[in-house]
Amino acid sequence: MSHFAKMPPLPYYAVIFANQAANTPDGYAEMAAQMVTLAETMPGYLGIESTRNENGFAITVSYWQDEASIKTWHQHSKHQIAQKIGRDRWYDHFVLRVAKVERHYDGP
Amino acid sequence: MSHFAKMPPLPYYAVIFANQAANTPDGYAEMAAQMVTLAETMPGYLGIESTRNENGFAITVSYWQDEASIKTWHQHSKHQIAQKIGRDRWYDHFVLRVAKVERHYDGP
Repeated sequence: MSHFAKMPPLPYYAVIFANQAANTPDGYAEMAAQMVTLAETMPGYLGIESTRNENGFAITVSYWQDEASIKTWHQHSKHQIAQKIGRDRWYDHFVLRVAKVERHYDGP
Repeated sequence: MSHFAKMPPLPYYAVIFANQAANTPDGYAEMAAQMVTLAETMPGYLGIESTRNENGFAITVSYWQDEASIKTWHQHSKHQIAQKIGRDRWYDHFVLRVAKVERHYDGP
């Protein structure tokens, strides 16, 4: 179950980051792991879900308490460096969407 | 670029469906493809992004105009059958979240 983020009290925010990476990008896995570790220390961080297929198409959804915590994370200096490397070297294309989670349920 | 959903005028809705499938479930791929084809005919459907890793952990995000179109899709008879089979046979666990997309951007 550890791939799933928890279901915190509503409402909260989701950052839906869909991306197509270049083939096995150098240093990507290490940086991604570092960013998760760092995000976990940020105020308002609630969890993350991430998966990538064999063609390098990935969706990472991170969950946050509010827009303020998303903006603080976006502006973190180490995260800014990772974003720049991502734009320059790792991502062929990405779409990022910020959304307010209004309801949720799990199953089966 | 075809893996990415378009960026329609804001606001719109995202259904974030994270799921862990049993190993290579029987009939799953065919049903998933049928559901995408059917969803595309539904009012308010805006697009879909989906990826699954080698361990069967998947995230599918479908985009919709509003809550009403999500509910209509949820209640479609053929989709109800797929949901039942999914609960009974395909998914070890899933979390579904409905979220209102408030901003978006793409890159690099």
